[in-house]
Amino acid sequence: MNYPNSIKKNKHVINYGNRGMNLENDLNETNNYYLLNDIAVIHKKPTPITIVNVDYKSRNDAVIREAYFKTPSTTDYNGLYNGKYIDFEAKETKNKLGFPLINIHEHQITHLKKIIDLGGIAFLIIRFSILGETYFVFAKDFINFINDYKKKTIPISFFREKGILLKEKYNPRLDYLKIIDKYEGDLIYDKTKE
Amino acid sequence: MNYPNSIKKNKHVINYGNRGMNLENDLNETNNYYLLNDIAVIHKKPTPITIVNVDYKSRNDAVIREAYFKTPSTTDYNGLYNGKYIDFEAKETKNKLGFPLINIHEHQITHLKKIIDLGGIAFLIIRFSILGETYFVFAKDFINFINDYKKKTIPISFFREKGILLKEKYNPRLDYLKIIDKYEGDLIYDKTKE
Repeated sequence: MNYPNSIKKNKHVINYGNRGMNLENDLNETNNYYLLNDIAVIHKKPTPITIVNVDYKSRNDAVIREAYFKTPSTTDYNGLYNGKYIDFEAKETKNKLGFPLINIHEHQITHLKKIIDLGGIAFLIIRFSILGETYFVFAKDFINFINDYKKKTIPISFFREKGILLKEKYNPRLDYLKIIDKYEGDLIYDKTKE
Repeated sequence: MNYPNSIKKNKHVINYGNRGMNLENDLNETNNYYLLNDIAVIHKKPTPITIVNVDYKSRNDAVIREAYFKTPSTTDYNGLYNGKYIDFEAKETKNKLGFPLINIHEHQITHLKKIIDLGGIAFLIIRFSILGETYFVFAKDFINFINDYKKKTIPISFFREKGILLKEKYNPRLDYLKIIDKYEGDLIYDKTKE
């Protein structure tokens, strides 16, 4: 079936109205920019699922007919930048007062701790979509806050104080690696456990 | 509609993933050992799929009813060891003469090249299940061989010459990080592109 030209063209129109509306898209575009420009190899991990039933129509045409979402045991994003291991979780919230911790699984916090302990660069990118603010925050600061304050929501004031505001640009959309370049000195990890 | 018990049971027999299950199990156990002993954080990525249809019985009880396998754009395993980024693909073959390249996607080779270029540690673990031999081979050697010889199968002689035989042990089952400790000197990457 052929579509009229006008519709075909439409597929390629980038909807700038959506800018900043979806953190995952922004990160995918940013990571793609990093990849194409030989800056970093950072991918979003596939959604972890348990597959129960698969239909094999043919050798290369399998359809998953029953599967379940699994609780992730790691963060969503990891990769390589400047010879270093990068690991982060990205979350979006409509909350205007802070970031509800229910959005992050305990396994993911444990995972981020391990990454810090073993010398990786661990952080979070949190977008407050209604406030229109996106923060980069090092996992160390995030975890310290959780341990010190035992709150169910991390207040926006924490992000404004300890986080680094990520401004959206044309390309790369959300240049979070720039933060690592700038603050890397703070990342040298003291091998003596606290 | 209720199915007879025999059919219900049948749903839990999964056949699709049995290829390479042995090596995968060995690696899962090994990675678990590394994780529990604070040696490394290395995980197998979930199988990439495209989800088309999800039944939401309730908020926490979603069933994926239609999904398709996607061609992976990266390798199956990555993580952090000794502050370094680790990336590898693991494959099992019943072939006694060599490793058929049809088992590796071109995207995965491109990915491994990028990892080398950006200073990560990239390798493959290939098990010849009938021969009872499992080899660790650096991606650099593997890719060089492909480029130089343009063959559809990499002969077992290549692995015996350029690879490092991994002996199975009790715990950790397949201690592949030991190889990295030993050969790391060879991994210093010349930033001038060839």
